[in-house]
Amino acid sequence: MTPTALCPGMFDPVTNGHLDIVHRAAALFDRVVVAVVENPTKEPLFPAEDRVEMLQEAVADVGSVEVASFGGLLVDYAREKGVDVIVKGLRAVSDFDYELQMAQMNRHLSQIETYFVPTSPTWSYLSSSLVKQVARYGGDVSGMVPDHVAGRLKERLA
Amino acid sequence: MTPTALCPGMFDPVTNGHLDIVHRAAALFDRVVVAVVENPTKEPLFPAEDRVEMLQEAVADVGSVEVASFGGLLVDYAREKGVDVIVKGLRAVSDFDYELQMAQMNRHLSQIETYFVPTSPTWSYLSSSLVKQVARYGGDVSGMVPDHVAGRLKERLA
Amino acid sequence: MTPTALCPGMFDPVTNGHLDIVHRAAALFDRVVVAVVENPTKEPLFPAEDRVEMLQEAVADVGSVEVASFGGLLVDYAREKGVDVIVKGLRAVSDFDYELQMAQMNRHLSQIETYFVPTSPTWSYLSSSLVKQVARYGGDVSGMVPDHVAGRLKERLA
Amino acid sequence: MTPTALCPGMFDPVTNGHLDIVHRAAALFDRVVVAVVENPTKEPLFPAEDRVEMLQEAVADVGSVEVASFGGLLVDYAREKGVDVIVKGLRAVSDFDYELQMAQMNRHLSQIETYFVPTSPTWSYLSSSLVKQVARYGGDVSGMVPDHVAGRLKERLA
Amino acid sequence: MTPTALCPGMFDPVTNGHLDIVHRAAALFDRVVVAVVENPTKEPLFPAEDRVEMLQEAVADVGSVEVASFGGLLVDYAREKGVDVIVKGLRAVSDFDYELQMAQMNRHLSQIETYFVPTSPTWSYLSSSLVKQVARYGGDVSGMVPDHVAGRLKERLA
Amino acid sequence: MTPTALCPGMFDPVTNGHLDIVHRAAALFDRVVVAVVENPTKEPLFPAEDRVEMLQEAVADVGSVEVASFGGLLVDYAREKGVDVIVKGLRAVSDFDYELQMAQMNRHLSQIETYFVPTSPTWSYLSSSLVKQVARYGGDVSGMVPDHVAGRLKERLA
Repeated sequence: MTPTALCPGMFDPVTNGHLDIVHRAAALFDRVVVAVVENPTKEPLFPAEDRVEMLQEAVADVGSVEVASFGGLLVDYAREKGVDVIVKGLRAVSDFDYELQMAQMNRHLSQIETYFVPTSPTWSYLSSSLVKQVARYGGDVSGMVPDHVAGRLKERLA
Repeated sequence: MTPTALCPGMFDPVTNGHLDIVHRAAALFDRVVVAVVENPTKEPLFPAEDRVEMLQEAVADVGSVEVASFGGLLVDYAREKGVDVIVKGLRAVSDFDYELQMAQMNRHLSQIETYFVPTSPTWSYLSSSLVKQVARYGGDVSGMVPDHVAGRLKERLA
Repeated sequence: MTPTALCPGMFDPVTNGHLDIVHRAAALFDRVVVAVVENPTKEPLFPAEDRVEMLQEAVADVGSVEVASFGGLLVDYAREKGVDVIVKGLRAVSDFDYELQMAQMNRHLSQIETYFVPTSPTWSYLSSSLVKQVARYGGDVSGMVPDHVAGRLKERLA
Repeated sequence: MTPTALCPGMFDPVTNGHLDIVHRAAALFDRVVVAVVENPTKEPLFPAEDRVEMLQEAVADVGSVEVASFGGLLVDYAREKGVDVIVKGLRAVSDFDYELQMAQMNRHLSQIETYFVPTSPTWSYLSSSLVKQVARYGGDVSGMVPDHVAGRLKERLA
Repeated sequence: MTPTALCPGMFDPVTNGHLDIVHRAAALFDRVVVAVVENPTKEPLFPAEDRVEMLQEAVADVGSVEVASFGGLLVDYAREKGVDVIVKGLRAVSDFDYELQMAQMNRHLSQIETYFVPTSPTWSYLSSSLVKQVARYGGDVSGMVPDHVAGRLKERLA
Repeated sequence: MTPTALCPGMFDPVTNGHLDIVHRAAALFDRVVVAVVENPTKEPLFPAEDRVEMLQEAVADVGSVEVASFGGLLVDYAREKGVDVIVKGLRAVSDFDYELQMAQMNRHLSQIETYFVPTSPTWSYLSSSLVKQVARYGGDVSGMVPDHVAGRLKERLA
């Protein structure tokens, strides 16, 4: 058996903080599925296909990572993909309570565990929503997201 | 004087976690009023009457509990009902700051105290919004809410 | 049945923040037992008898409050005293996790619930240890503790 | 060089808690700019001009304070105004993570530091949104906001 | 390569909460090393050999788990053992900050990542120190620790 | 008037995280007093004179910074030194509650405000106690403390 990890998220858009987590998961697990939530509760800036494309370009150099999108329950998708563990980044205490609740719910529904990896301090201030806010007002987001994502943000917010 | 406790909330819908708190309050206080907020800030899934009905069915076996709904300020309603204390469940640290702020505001407005009861670990991952999210995608919410609530959720989200 | 509340603590020494909680409990419950832990893990500044005396003087005006000290398990003492509920003040988020753990442990051991009351903002910066630290260096602690406690602190630390 | 502090916020509307922070900043820095965010993410109750007016009336007695509104990035505005430091109140732990993230982002974008001042316990339960909620249902908000703000709230919510 | 996980701790003594984490790690990783810190800062109740023995008996049924003790730096021991990842349980927000700091320090020193697994709600109120406190006063700790550990606690505290 | 900031602490020993805060304070205030607590509650590794010396060497290049040690109450020392504001670094949420309590106490005793500066993410995992722990077991602490401090740590722990 080769263990497979699932990294779920909105990725609206992917940041260097997200990629840091994906690379860490890829260093430990044989196969990593990055799964974009198709219909998040809040209206995303980018449609699911765009979010998948940006991720695919960003992880193209890591052979063991595949990117896909999903609707429905995360645990149903995880079972369908033969996933052994969910891997999530943990940035700050304020993330913790919600993520813990989700992890316990997912475990209750499916017996699939969630493992948390602390975000690198370098990226601790990054979030998709803050990056979008900066980009919206013409701030420089290079160094926060991959170059091709910075370009797409500029286009989209123009 | 027989002390009366007030358990306010959205109850959209009631979960087993809510019922746990109501039962604990009923074990300590002579009379418990469960009060449904009629017009919460966010659009509820169920109208107030449905939320009251689901609660009434769920607490039908506890004689000292009555269920009602209210508009306006909680402290005005509490005074009108002759309430001695507000009782709320406390699930996680992230609830704490907001609930503390509300408790201090309500005390400032009315001198009515808020007592907090820690949610049982068994229900620590439950919240109305997470239950709705699971039910929306066809997940199994039995064991998280009373059976009649699970049925209503299915109908409503169909 | 008249409900009895138990307010346990080190009370080394009692502060105005502690008294605020005791007065609130006395306003809601028919009988309040304030229980001094005889042998806390850390070496106390005052022996248990002194801590009891200071409390007795501080609550002498509230008829329904009795003060005592206890060794052993809190829940054993609570059962012996016919206590219905443990009442504790909650000052800050950092108290929360430990108090929640204690509450769940005590419930597991005895079915006795713990209710938490938020400390009044006025006393939010008070703790016995900080008061002792201020008093140790000659700072003015009047307004933080009852006058007779301020006097005892001065003597003890001289 | 005379150091200038910037106090940014929605101020929808200004509360006594906000004014407490502005007065503290004015006691330490030579010049304080209170900057109203013109287009917050959430729809404000008052337009930016009204929020500026209410602030101006509230700080009219402090010579070194000026009030203005801004669009775009906070750090761009700060540079334009010759600001040396951003000053923000910190009320509760739940504010902390988000404010820390913003502070680190702003430092990354501009090298401008953010200093945090703890809100006075007296105002710890105040927030613009809670004040609006109380006012909406006819609760008494005098003592939470300046009198002229209480009047405007009444008009606006009538 | 078969990935190896390291579960470090005081284990003074091992609780059912610890064992829950070890079993989860064993379900995901090919090999799990449970490593007892020989000389913790605080004086332990049990010497390192006893702590190792209690663990060995508790995990005897899981073939892929080995138990050992170590002195010195955790990351030196991890490298020596050919460990790929450190796995730790995360119980409450108050654990989070310290554990995050340790994880970042260990990563800085060795590039070895720390993955966190949320403790099951069932064991959320358990800690070695609380179990010892209960046992010290004759409380019933069966159901909190394995039976052989309960017996050793009784002897040791007699 | 030239505003003076006070940076108090144990500095046992000074880390790069501490120096980051001192440099930031020196960039904003005309004069910065770094004040070493002479007799902390816990036994320090280095005597006060050594801690002062290490700091003096570390800040020798910043003209506006002076280093001293003090006994007694911080606010008494602050008044004696003509200090306008206390400046402290804030690293993590778990620091926040205690620091807030201290800030409010100091304000109550003296009207002197405390301003908090978020620690740079680069140093977020650093603390004197963790650095000592690493150094004790022969770990490499260069890059965490100034070189001369690393040398002293080696000597002291030999």
